[in-house]
Amino acid sequence: MDLRVGVIGTGAIGQEHVHRLQTKLAGAKVTAVTDIDLERAERIAKKYGARMEKTGYSLINAPDIDAVVVTSWGPAHEKAVLEAIAAGKPVFCEKPLATTAEGCKNIVKAEIAAGKQLVQVGFMRRYDKGYKQLKELMEQKAYGEPLMLRCTHRNPAVDESYDTSMAVTDTAIHEIDCLHWLIDDDYATAQVVFPKETKYTHSRLKDPQLMILTTKSGINITIEVFVNCQFGYDIQCEIVCEEGVVKMAEPSFPTIRSKEKLSQKLENDWKKRFIDAYDVEMQEWINDTKKGIVNGPGAWDGYVAAVTADALVKAQETGKAWVIETGNCPDFYK
Amino acid sequence: MDLRVGVIGTGAIGQEHVHRLQTKLAGAKVTAVTDIDLERAERIAKKYGARMEKTGYSLINAPDIDAVVVTSWGPAHEKAVLEAIAAGKPVFCEKPLATTAEGCKNIVKAEIAAGKQLVQVGFMRRYDKGYKQLKELMEQKAYGEPLMLRCTHRNPAVDESYDTSMAVTDTAIHEIDCLHWLIDDDYATAQVVFPKETKYTHSRLKDPQLMILTTKSGINITIEVFVNCQFGYDIQCEIVCEEGVVKMAEPSFPTIRSKEKLSQKLENDWKKRFIDAYDVEMQEWINDTKKGIVNGPGAWDGYVAAVTADALVKAQETGKAWVIETGNCPDFYK
Amino acid sequence: MDLRVGVIGTGAIGQEHVHRLQTKLAGAKVTAVTDIDLERAERIAKKYGARMEKTGYSLINAPDIDAVVVTSWGPAHEKAVLEAIAAGKPVFCEKPLATTAEGCKNIVKAEIAAGKQLVQVGFMRRYDKGYKQLKELMEQKAYGEPLMLRCTHRNPAVDESYDTSMAVTDTAIHEIDCLHWLIDDDYATAQVVFPKETKYTHSRLKDPQLMILTTKSGINITIEVFVNCQFGYDIQCEIVCEEGVVKMAEPSFPTIRSKEKLSQKLENDWKKRFIDAYDVEMQEWINDTKKGIVNGPGAWDGYVAAVTADALVKAQETGKAWVIETGNCPDFYK
Amino acid sequence: MDLRVGVIGTGAIGQEHVHRLQTKLAGAKVTAVTDIDLERAERIAKKYGARMEKTGYSLINAPDIDAVVVTSWGPAHEKAVLEAIAAGKPVFCEKPLATTAEGCKNIVKAEIAAGKQLVQVGFMRRYDKGYKQLKELMEQKAYGEPLMLRCTHRNPAVDESYDTSMAVTDTAIHEIDCLHWLIDDDYATAQVVFPKETKYTHSRLKDPQLMILTTKSGINITIEVFVNCQFGYDIQCEIVCEEGVVKMAEPSFPTIRSKEKLSQKLENDWKKRFIDAYDVEMQEWINDTKKGIVNGPGAWDGYVAAVTADALVKAQETGKAWVIETGNCPDFYK
Repeated sequence: MDLRVGVIGTGAIGQEHVHRLQTKLAGAKVTAVTDIDLERAERIAKKYGARMEKTGYSLINAPDIDAVVVTSWGPAHEKAVLEAIAAGKPVFCEKPLATTAEGCKNIVKAEIAAGKQLVQVGFMRRYDKGYKQLKELMEQKAYGEPLMLRCTHRNPAVDESYDTSMAVTDTAIHEIDCLHWLIDDDYATAQVVFPKETKYTHSRLKDPQLMILTTKSGINITIEVFVNCQFGYDIQCEIVCEEGVVKMAEPSFPTIRSKEKLSQKLENDWKKRFIDAYDVEMQEWINDTKKGIVNGPGAWDGYVAAVTADALVKAQETGKAWVIETGNCPDFYK
Repeated sequence: MDLRVGVIGTGAIGQEHVHRLQTKLAGAKVTAVTDIDLERAERIAKKYGARMEKTGYSLINAPDIDAVVVTSWGPAHEKAVLEAIAAGKPVFCEKPLATTAEGCKNIVKAEIAAGKQLVQVGFMRRYDKGYKQLKELMEQKAYGEPLMLRCTHRNPAVDESYDTSMAVTDTAIHEIDCLHWLIDDDYATAQVVFPKETKYTHSRLKDPQLMILTTKSGINITIEVFVNCQFGYDIQCEIVCEEGVVKMAEPSFPTIRSKEKLSQKLENDWKKRFIDAYDVEMQEWINDTKKGIVNGPGAWDGYVAAVTADALVKAQETGKAWVIETGNCPDFYK
Repeated sequence: MDLRVGVIGTGAIGQEHVHRLQTKLAGAKVTAVTDIDLERAERIAKKYGARMEKTGYSLINAPDIDAVVVTSWGPAHEKAVLEAIAAGKPVFCEKPLATTAEGCKNIVKAEIAAGKQLVQVGFMRRYDKGYKQLKELMEQKAYGEPLMLRCTHRNPAVDESYDTSMAVTDTAIHEIDCLHWLIDDDYATAQVVFPKETKYTHSRLKDPQLMILTTKSGINITIEVFVNCQFGYDIQCEIVCEEGVVKMAEPSFPTIRSKEKLSQKLENDWKKRFIDAYDVEMQEWINDTKKGIVNGPGAWDGYVAAVTADALVKAQETGKAWVIETGNCPDFYK
Repeated sequence: MDLRVGVIGTGAIGQEHVHRLQTKLAGAKVTAVTDIDLERAERIAKKYGARMEKTGYSLINAPDIDAVVVTSWGPAHEKAVLEAIAAGKPVFCEKPLATTAEGCKNIVKAEIAAGKQLVQVGFMRRYDKGYKQLKELMEQKAYGEPLMLRCTHRNPAVDESYDTSMAVTDTAIHEIDCLHWLIDDDYATAQVVFPKETKYTHSRLKDPQLMILTTKSGINITIEVFVNCQFGYDIQCEIVCEEGVVKMAEPSFPTIRSKEKLSQKLENDWKKRFIDAYDVEMQEWINDTKKGIVNGPGAWDGYVAAVTADALVKAQETGKAWVIETGNCPDFYK
């Protein structure tokens, strides 16, 4: 039987997920959609052969909805996820899980109280082939313990609305989730260093930034966030271990000899870079949900990301190293 | 509405396609399966929630079958494909389309007589990301006309049952289909050169072989087939154009610094190398079939592959260049 | 006319330079050598067709000595260099120029007082092909201003005598000299971070270390020093600019497909990595000396390296960022 | 004592060798030069502090000449080399050793009659770092026996005076010498295939060409010669062995991320590609000559190159495979 999915929020990313569920993945169908803009919801419902529900609440509680996808705007996430938990229905929530660490904590508490993991957060990098290859190598411990990570998150350009703190909350947030998973460790401290600025930035954005995280076991992580790097979308992850250094593969393009250069294309768009990861993420969520389990990033991961992002923003504001205090991961999530 | 698919042949590759259709792809369901071994067919039918049909003919002509997948053994392909054409049903046939060029020609004639393209042949390389990237570059003609292609088809090892002619019919057959599509040209001549033999081969297999094809416009193609190369499964394709040289990307793995080496894994298994291509191939076949079109390699391509393979085998046997005579491609297939 | 060179110190590196001057380079001859161990000096003199002088002073002031190479142990450098300046003779001094910043300052003052640049310090990296290629790109400013540098200095293993401070004075000292030259900027601050330690280190050595330098214009430099990395000798230098990222070439070795890996050898020995640079350095020193100029790293660079190394050691000891105060570069050295 | 060298021919390459000997290498001095244009010889003599001799004969036989470098035009080589042999003086002769195989044979005979190896031919590739790395791997036999070689010799453009046969005599001639040395085998047959022509060629030049050589042990060698490839000077050499494939390193340049590309410069000029090889070649010739030995390509190699080139030209003209008959290598040269 196909998993009957309801989608809350039919903006750009919501539409993409509806399209994905209806035309690219196996084992699920979108039964109903809703949106703050009901006309839009109606239009999308028609286009993909689903029905429109007037509210998130009615959608979540409809008897023909087995699971919920939350793709509304950030401030609406917490309420929708809590309602899904209350209804005992599995819910996939795009990042952020909630706009505050406290909101994430509320969800964690509600889920623990409900006694069953229901929530997955839309951190798709864990489903990217490159990161999965690294994860496999980390689990094999073939090169000893990891000691340092060097990452880059480079983006061609951002517009004027993007400011210094968004380098954490919109950009590094992906590394925040992905890296602690990769090395199976907890964050301890956060620091942000501001190198010389590029001429391509504006007054409210310090660009590039060098974010430095440490973990409880002492691993040092540097993340270069450079959102006006001009040249492309460039995600790198290198792990320095005791006996070897492992680096994520570059995206795969033909090599070309032309005009005195040996070259390969670089991605310039985050969507293209992670398009396959989105598909895999959602297919595995469907498969896991049908089995009644959550295997992907859960509510606790959403909370950790929020606390870590808060510490990095504090570090940006104060120029100091900041302690990341998430408390211990509840047994419920282990 | 899901495309209702019937699968003829539930051996290894048949089971893979059933699994793929039921659990990984969108828009299709396996409704019925059959096999020469009815117990096996019954078992697979049960496992995947389909029903068993006793013969290919009954499966093809069942009213709840919209399209057919032929994955029986080679000698049974021609009959099944002809029956599907007779029934006016779209059919995806694993390679070879038929075991002889004449058999392929029969299918071409039947399809033309039926007045509608129904047949797709399972040459999955056209759906591989690496080849698709090359195809896109060829269509852009950004580097001028192609003049030469240098390809390798290297495989770690084969067993004693693999002989000299199978280097053409089992191995180079993939390049045969893929390369003329890539450069949009027709083959003219075939030649095979036998270099010094590896000590890892046996008396009935000349290994490696250098196959040389030319096209009607004069493009020179060399294909190194080396099926006991020991080190991995290594598919390369380089196109020398008038203003640049384009080479297919290597499969994507992390780079590792360890033990005085900078290294990347190489594939060692053809299935892993082309696993994604199989998924894309079948998803696109579903999508195309629902639209009533054939976009992939068709019956004419199956015929061209058979004629070209025959010429290469003749070239192996005689040591001489051999003319490849397919006749002109009927307008029906353009 | 060949430049007549006297060599002070005939230990390992002294012998290498004598060998280089006598058998690999053009335009110079070793006329005399001396050493604290006169028997060794005598032996080397005989082997290479030079004569032995009893003291550095007599060697420097011999009328058939045009220029001096100082390869004695570190504590003897300052005296020898000052004597060469007093004698008005060009002098090439292996690093360190002096064992203290004060000693370097004395040399700077003496040279300025003498009114002519005579001193070159043996920082050979500026003559390495890889760094020279980067320098050329930096001078072209083809990718805008440099904003960040990411460097590694990895070494397979060190013995028990190597301690934490030597990561600065013996290892990072090369980056210290090379990097400010590369980006044509002055250092401002120094900081050292200690990641999780490798199990291959000992109690008196924190390994790896992450050194962070900033420059007056704000460029951020991270140098990973990892001297027990096990896998090889691995010098990397990446420069993040406003419009592009430039990375030094890996040492050049054949690519090999073998045992399911695509690999290249990595260097494991610093001498092999920089062997060509030593030859180029000395040849250019000969050529420059004959023209009466100093083009390589001079006394001021030796002083800057000493002050910067002191700040990094202070940063190691205190855990804090440390200001690097060299004062302004005298016009004499511009 | 420095080797006293006389140079016959002060055109472009002669001047380069004089410059090299006087300013870059150790252990030799140019004592005298001559040229068919005595004014030019006089000018070069003055510039580099040598004297002018009026004829090759007088230069060769001057008592202060220990060894001779022949850099006159090709047709004058044979006479000069024979005179040097007659005078018992070591001679380094730029390629070709003689303009005909018969001329080369004359030199071989004269040298054998003289009873001592004196002649080295200017095939500099054997001194290139890339080829030396391959040679070392071949000698180790770490990957089993070589079975096939795939080489490219690509050049950006040639002028109208360059015709089809020059693809052999001026271009592939370097591979001809280098490859049989690399695999320590003798050539057996030669064949030339003409792919589709580039639009950048002219009526008297077939471009590109695919040259196919076989060796006595059965190794198959393909050399793509493409002299109007537009994009750069691109020398590749890949050796397919029984257990692995070895490929010569690309020239070493920084990797650059810029404008959505990850790229490295490619060489565009053969002189820059092999500049280091010329220096090493000449330094080793100096060193070997002082020891009284010939270690580089000798007269027999010059003869083999001439015979092989003749066979390839015949193969071009006739379209057929051509037998390469050099006879056995005399013991004198083993």
